[in-house]
Amino acid sequence: MSSPSPFAQPSAPPVPFTVDDYRARMARAAESAAEAGLAGVIVAPGPDLVHLTGYRPVSTERLTLLVLRAGHDPVLVVPTLEAPDAAAATGAPALTLRDWTDGKDPYEVTAPLLAAEGRFGVSDNAWAMHLLGLQRQLPGTSYTALTEALPMLRAVKDAAELERLAAAGAAADATYEEILKVRFSGRREVDVAMDLAALLREFGHSQVDFTVVGSGPNGANPHHEAGERTIERGDMVVLDFGGLKHGYGSDTSRTVHVGEPTAEEQRVHDIVREAQQAGCAAVRPGVACQEIDRAARAVITEFGYGDRFIHRTGHGIGVTTHEPPYMIEGEEQPLVPGMCFSVEPGIYLPGRFGVRIEDIVAVTEDGGRRLNTTARELAVVE
Amino acid sequence: MSSPSPFAQPSAPPVPFTVDDYRARMARAAESAAEAGLAGVIVAPGPDLVHLTGYRPVSTERLTLLVLRAGHDPVLVVPTLEAPDAAAATGAPALTLRDWTDGKDPYEVTAPLLAAEGRFGVSDNAWAMHLLGLQRQLPGTSYTALTEALPMLRAVKDAAELERLAAAGAAADATYEEILKVRFSGRREVDVAMDLAALLREFGHSQVDFTVVGSGPNGANPHHEAGERTIERGDMVVLDFGGLKHGYGSDTSRTVHVGEPTAEEQRVHDIVREAQQAGCAAVRPGVACQEIDRAARAVITEFGYGDRFIHRTGHGIGVTTHEPPYMIEGEEQPLVPGMCFSVEPGIYLPGRFGVRIEDIVAVTEDGGRRLNTTARELAVVE
Repeated sequence: MSSPSPFAQPSAPPVPFTVDDYRARMARAAESAAEAGLAGVIVAPGPDLVHLTGYRPVSTERLTLLVLRAGHDPVLVVPTLEAPDAAAATGAPALTLRDWTDGKDPYEVTAPLLAAEGRFGVSDNAWAMHLLGLQRQLPGTSYTALTEALPMLRAVKDAAELERLAAAGAAADATYEEILKVRFSGRREVDVAMDLAALLREFGHSQVDFTVVGSGPNGANPHHEAGERTIERGDMVVLDFGGLKHGYGSDTSRTVHVGEPTAEEQRVHDIVREAQQAGCAAVRPGVACQEIDRAARAVITEFGYGDRFIHRTGHGIGVTTHEPPYMIEGEEQPLVPGMCFSVEPGIYLPGRFGVRIEDIVAVTEDGGRRLNTTARELAVVE
Repeated sequence: MSSPSPFAQPSAPPVPFTVDDYRARMARAAESAAEAGLAGVIVAPGPDLVHLTGYRPVSTERLTLLVLRAGHDPVLVVPTLEAPDAAAATGAPALTLRDWTDGKDPYEVTAPLLAAEGRFGVSDNAWAMHLLGLQRQLPGTSYTALTEALPMLRAVKDAAELERLAAAGAAADATYEEILKVRFSGRREVDVAMDLAALLREFGHSQVDFTVVGSGPNGANPHHEAGERTIERGDMVVLDFGGLKHGYGSDTSRTVHVGEPTAEEQRVHDIVREAQQAGCAAVRPGVACQEIDRAARAVITEFGYGDRFIHRTGHGIGVTTHEPPYMIEGEEQPLVPGMCFSVEPGIYLPGRFGVRIEDIVAVTEDGGRRLNTTARELAVVE
C-alpha cells in the first residue's frame, strides 16, 4: 500500500488554465443556456465564477455578477473598488468589466445587460438580496437555480481538471497512510483532526475543508466534525477529510478501529465496504445517478440497516468539494465520461458508532476509475 | 500611547450568551417583523442565525432555515444529518427543530411553516436556490431582503455586545502598536500581513478576516489585500486589519510611511485625518447615517480630492465585520445609541499611493465613542 513519499517527489504545479480556457467555458455556458431555453446565465462569486473566469472575489452585499448570453459578449458587473482585482483575473481579457460605485443601484446597472423578459439561470449561492434586486428591476424576468437549469455546467471535467482531481485524491490517500501511524487512543478527536489538516497541507492542499474524526458515538452523527472527546481503545473512528489542492477537491473517508474490533463492528464495516464496492461497480456512462445510490443502498438494506443509512450516497467534486451531480434517489441524470463524484455509503448506530467508506470516482468511457485507492479493510490503529 | 500588555493581562472570556438571550432576540425579531408589516422572517445560515440562535452551520445546498413569525414558536428547518449539531446550539431549547432527510423536498417541509400569502423578510445571504424553492412552493408570498426590511435587526448592540466590540477594538489597537515596531522596508507586503494576522491572534482573535498591506501604488486600490511587492523606503503603506474576537468584530486602518514623507504625502494624510475627525465628530443619536458620510466627504472635497474618495465612509460591525448600518449618501436611517460602525474615509491616487484612516465608533446617548484610540498622526516606520 505504500506509495513514494510526496516529500521526496513534490508534485509539479499543474499547467495553469489560460484565458482561452475561460473564454471557451463562458461560450459553452452561454450556448448550453440557450439550448436549455434560458435567456442567459447570471453567475455570482463562488465556484461558478471561479470555473468560468478564474476570478475569486468574496461574496458580499456589494454586487458582483457575470452575465452570459448567447450572441453577447460576457460582461462582469463589479464594484468600482474591486475592479482592479477583477481586471487581474486570468479570464478578464475575455470579458467586459462594468463597474458601479457605492451609492448607485447596482441592479439598475445590471438590468440593461439582461433581457426585459425571459428566464435566467442564476448561481445557486447568489445572495437572495441580489436576486430580489433583479426581480424588482425586471418584473418580466424569471429565474431558476443553475444546478436545476444547467446541472452539468461544471460536472463534466476535461483532462486537465481530471489530472488535478487525481492529484488531490493522491494527496488525500497519502494523508490516510500517514494518519494510520499516529496514536489515536488517549488523544482528543481535535488532535487527530489537526494531524489530518497538517498532513493535507504537507501533501499540497492549499485549503482544508473538513477533517471529520467521529469516535465511538460521535461517529453515529454523519456531520460531526471533531470534538473534545478523548478517543479510547475499543472505539470505531470515522475519518472523513478533504480540501483543495491546486484549486480542485479531495474527499475520502475510511473508518478505523482502536484495537481489535468486535464481531458486530467488523460485520457492520464489512456491510458498508460491500455497499461501497457495489456503488463503485455500478458506475459507467449512461447509468442514472440514482442507480449508484440504489446499488449501495440495496446492500445495506439487504442486511437490515436500511434505516441507518441516512444520507445520499454521493456528490460531485471539482472546484468545490460538494457539487452536482448527486448520487441520490430521484436523480435521473445519466453519467457522462469526465464526471467525478463520491461514493460514500454509511451505517450510523445512534449512541454507539458509525461507519463510512468513501472514494472519489471518475466516470471513464466504459466504467469508473477510483481516485482514492487506499485499503478499504477495517484498519486497526493504536 | 502605550497600553498595558495584553500578554500580561489576558482578557477574561466574556460571560456567554444564554438561551434567554437568544429567546429574547428571536421574539424581538418576530415582533419587529410584524411591526414592519411582514408575515415573518426567514433566516439562513450566517450572521443572522448566529445572532438569533448561536447556531453556526455552513451554508450549503442543503436547506437550513429559521422561521420566525409573531404568535408562533420559532422553528428551525435542518437536514436530518445536521440535527444533532443544531440541537447542541445554545439557543436550541428556545425553538422547535424540524428535520428533513435527503431525497425529500425541503421546500415542501418549510412551506406549512409560512403563510400562503404575505411578505417575508429573508436573510440577505440566503442562497438564491433556496429563495427560488420557496417562491415556487408558495406563489402567493413575496420576499424582501432583511437588511432592507429590518435593517436594524442586529444594528443596535446591547451592553454585553458593546463590551465584546470594545475588547476586539482594543486587541486591534494593540496589534497596531506592535506592528509599528516591525521592519517594513525590504520585506514583502504579505510578510507584514502575516505579522498582523499573528498579532491579532496573539491578542485574542479567533478569526482574522483581512490584513490589508497596501504599499506605494497598491495603496491606491482600496481593496488590495497584500501581495508580493517589496516595501521600500519612501512608501506610504495603508494598513487595514480586523477579524473576530469572542465572536465580535474589529476593523481599524492606519496609514504609515517608511521614512520621512514628502510634503504632498503629509498633506494628503492630514486631509484624510481631518475628514475622519469630521466624520467621527458628527456622530450622535438622531443624525442620519448619510450625514456621517457627508461630513467626512465634505473635507476631502473641499481640498479638491472628492473624486479620489471612491467608497462609502463606513459600515456597521457586530457578529460580522461588515453589516448595516452603512454610512453612505442616501441612507437616512437615524443613528441610535448602541449602533457601532466604521468611519474610514480615504484618498486614492492611482499609480502612486493611498491613505485611509479608520476607527470603529459606538453611538452613545449624546455622541460617539471611538473603540479604536491609537494615534492618527502619520507614523514613520523603518
